Amino acid sequence: MSERKGKKVSESFTTMTQLVMPNDTNPLDKLMGGNLMRWMDIAGGICAGRHCEAHVVTASVDHVSFHRPINVGDVVTLTAQVTRAFRTSVEIFVEVFTTNIKGGSPKKSNHAFFTFVALEDHSKTPKQVPAVIALSESEQTLYEAASRRREIRLILSGRMKPGEAKEVKDFFASL
Amino acid sequence: MSERKGKKVSESFTTMTQLVMPNDTNPLDKLMGGNLMRWMDIAGGICAGRHCEAHVVTASVDHVSFHRPINVGDVVTLTAQVTRAFRTSVEIFVEVFTTNIKGGSPKKSNHAFFTFVALEDHSKTPKQVPAVIALSESEQTLYEAASRRREIRLILSGRMKPGEAKEVKDFFASL
Amino acid sequence: MSERKGKKVSESFTTMTQLVMPNDTNPLDKLMGGNLMRWMDIAGGICAGRHCEAHVVTASVDHVSFHRPINVGDVVTLTAQVTRAFRTSVEIFVEVFTTNIKGGSPKKSNHAFFTFVALEDHSKTPKQVPAVIALSESEQTLYEAASRRREIRLILSGRMKPGEAKEVKDFFASL
Amino acid sequence: MSERKGKKVSESFTTMTQLVMPNDTNPLDKLMGGNLMRWMDIAGGICAGRHCEAHVVTASVDHVSFHRPINVGDVVTLTAQVTRAFRTSVEIFVEVFTTNIKGGSPKKSNHAFFTFVALEDHSKTPKQVPAVIALSESEQTLYEAASRRREIRLILSGRMKPGEAKEVKDFFASL
Amino acid sequence: MSERKGKKVSESFTTMTQLVMPNDTNPLDKLMGGNLMRWMDIAGGICAGRHCEAHVVTASVDHVSFHRPINVGDVVTLTAQVTRAFRTSVEIFVEVFTTNIKGGSPKKSNHAFFTFVALEDHSKTPKQVPAVIALSESEQTLYEAASRRREIRLILSGRMKPGEAKEVKDFFASL
Amino acid sequence: MSERKGKKVSESFTTMTQLVMPNDTNPLDKLMGGNLMRWMDIAGGICAGRHCEAHVVTASVDHVSFHRPINVGDVVTLTAQVTRAFRTSVEIFVEVFTTNIKGGSPKKSNHAFFTFVALEDHSKTPKQVPAVIALSESEQTLYEAASRRREIRLILSGRMKPGEAKEVKDFFASL
Repeated sequence: MSERKGKKVSESFTTMTQLVMPNDTNPLDKLMGGNLMRWMDIAGGICAGRHCEAHVVTASVDHVSFHRPINVGDVVTLTAQVTRAFRTSVEIFVEVFTTNIKGGSPKKSNHAFFTFVALEDHSKTPKQVPAVIALSESEQTLYEAASRRREIRLILSGRMKPGEAKEVKDFFASL
Repeated sequence: MSERKGKKVSESFTTMTQLVMPNDTNPLDKLMGGNLMRWMDIAGGICAGRHCEAHVVTASVDHVSFHRPINVGDVVTLTAQVTRAFRTSVEIFVEVFTTNIKGGSPKKSNHAFFTFVALEDHSKTPKQVPAVIALSESEQTLYEAASRRREIRLILSGRMKPGEAKEVKDFFASL
Repeated sequence: MSERKGKKVSESFTTMTQLVMPNDTNPLDKLMGGNLMRWMDIAGGICAGRHCEAHVVTASVDHVSFHRPINVGDVVTLTAQVTRAFRTSVEIFVEVFTTNIKGGSPKKSNHAFFTFVALEDHSKTPKQVPAVIALSESEQTLYEAASRRREIRLILSGRMKPGEAKEVKDFFASL
Repeated sequence: MSERKGKKVSESFTTMTQLVMPNDTNPLDKLMGGNLMRWMDIAGGICAGRHCEAHVVTASVDHVSFHRPINVGDVVTLTAQVTRAFRTSVEIFVEVFTTNIKGGSPKKSNHAFFTFVALEDHSKTPKQVPAVIALSESEQTLYEAASRRREIRLILSGRMKPGEAKEVKDFFASL
Repeated sequence: MSERKGKKVSESFTTMTQLVMPNDTNPLDKLMGGNLMRWMDIAGGICAGRHCEAHVVTASVDHVSFHRPINVGDVVTLTAQVTRAFRTSVEIFVEVFTTNIKGGSPKKSNHAFFTFVALEDHSKTPKQVPAVIALSESEQTLYEAASRRREIRLILSGRMKPGEAKEVKDFFASL
Repeated sequence: MSERKGKKVSESFTTMTQLVMPNDTNPLDKLMGGNLMRWMDIAGGICAGRHCEAHVVTASVDHVSFHRPINVGDVVTLTAQVTRAFRTSVEIFVEVFTTNIKGGSPKKSNHAFFTFVALEDHSKTPKQVPAVIALSESEQTLYEAASRRREIRLILSGRMKPGEAKEVKDFFASL
């Protein structure tokens, strides 16, 4: 892929803070998983829109685990950063941190990789997006592994046959 | 696993219908992916609660793809069925179908596998759940593949080393 | 009325499931009657849209009683079925069943008859609707009694003088 | 019924104003009937609570017709007044008036009669309520017709046999 | 300012009633200040729209204090009245009264002065508004002090230099 | 004031991002002022809670101006920082920046000063709060002017006579 004009990860880095309201919780007073995914999708979409300078739509979400229950009244901080751009889509890494209302050091709750497709204005045509310039070591690690995650995604959504997934196959063969 | 008293898939089958409201949509008037995931989580949780006869919390969601844009005013029908029970958790298969307000034959939008953990009343202790009795061919197919999906999930959430994932390794080796 | 091309009741049968959230309840933690009516209206409107293959607007709701309190965290299942079509409107029978989150056999909470008017696209002109083909005995009972309910409705909304309500008058005279 | 200490209608008269938001409307940008019923239930419940000086729950709603479409951005004014008290319940008359955002003389949209049951604090036991002192002519007309409406309600909810409905029977016989 | 055709304060007087729902409250079950400000803005905007017979947008809110905690389940009554019109804007006085669900005499919670700008239809051009006819003594007191409040507002928003604020300067000099 | 153990401004700095949804807007598709104030209150309250390590309630909001219309689909970023602590309360400075969904350099929309009172756990008793350590020049400017803003607030809420407001009086005398 001939790299287009690139943008740094930091240029679209997004922070979102949410206060957990009663209606966001289940009968056990814990934040419902679906509400957290909804916030992750919004934070990821804002970040993707900033990087692509375009309207975006959610194309996929990778596996999400929920380890730590989050209580009503807790403060949830979501960060979203672009990891890598493909032709008309971007992969966004969303992380979730939680503290109670009094603050204290936030604990990581979970994370997920989203992909968003950029659209031309007033049309459904996908739009080419800027490349990602990964500077720090952690940005580069996320950048490198993005193609393996993409192969898994194409298999899981039925658009690539498992036998063609070279990166994934090599990965499991090497174990 | 010594099978406990089992329940049929049909006993907890759940249908949910939602009308897409303006606030559920993005600036392009399409249902936001995060809102769809929120509904899938609620439908899955109701189904899991019915099978387990217990309060449940979302433990994970597998990969979700969004293929077909859903418009404001569309009617979204979600079905949720249990595929297999593990000791204190169940895997739920959620499918999404969409029609416009005038009806017509619904089109499949997407699907996902959720896992939910059952809890003892008034406590955070996980609770043992009934086994699943898979009767129809499609129920048995979902039942059989559930252990491979579980291995992938354990790897992705860091609770199993890829080298230990026997089913997944065999699957990729056979390709 | 010369019957138009008919559609079976089952073709537009609608099931909706709702989880009672904290914001749906009053200070006694019971589902507010008005919120239940809002869900009944949505379920009925989806069913009417399916039968009429058109946008619909609510024209009326008959008497609704609330017998059984519904708690936060309960699962409310609403079913909606068309009973009879008039020239440009349909009568829809909505029933409400409730279980707690753990499932168990649902208990009937209440029911109501709604009428919806079908509209031509992009206009306020009412649109002719398909007739209803009532097959089962219960469908036929609902179909037969629909004209008496319609007379009561026309009286109550001031569009028919009580003396003209032949079916209703006969009914009370026969008691 | 030996009349208890009475309260005037004006002591619990309630006015509520709502601005119609996008999420309150259907795909035709009209206020959904179910949302209007939800507001009517809240206005009626506040009025009933004021008269009864107690928590109240909705027991029933009589027939509601929707004549006039209400647009997004319109201002909806609801008034609620008590008409008559029975032993542990009150009948509330709710009227709905609408103007567009610029004001102008409000047009009546519709009305309904609700009944609410008063509850003892921290219990489900119904509580005796104050009698209603109807002063103006319109208040007295509403007061007088309340027992006929009550008979119809008891018939419709299956708690009175039509043959026992003396007031209703006489009314139809006299036509 | 040559006075235009005026309208009486009573012609646009607005009463709004709200029931405090769980989602409106903080983790201490008290109404959040921001939610109360949101309701005050809506009540004020409806009143301003009625006086101006135009769409309006919020231009400013003066100082708001929150003295009395408001509980979930309380009934909040907001009144809004126009105090004075400037060329294309109006000042609206919003007062907030609270009772618990059982009624009883409402207690004043707080108040604020909002300003709204009237707009020509389908444009962003400000529109000239009717003058205010202040009849009662309290209406005249609010009318008189409106120009001093306006000077403070212009200073606080950086559109007037403090030295030019003649009314405010005189007021503090006289103390 | 004997300074208690202090905390740096940066320790409680809070960033919140919101996507403007259809229901947040008025009939002109612009964010309603009251909704923006609601978000400012939440962002300010989270920041105050972090600094005070306690539950907080909103005590007051100073004058807020709305200069720049914000559209549906825009991304609103709110930052909140503590400026100064008084005995049991803190002043929080909230700033609002807006971009459209495509990003671009954010434009300042408005700002406001909120005060929050910290509360002891499970009680309504105000709680002493940590002092604020203002390091940068802008932090010190905000810190210095906080006592003048406090005097104005005490006058406006009727808890100080204008003649006692030494700082404010000197300020206007010097003009």
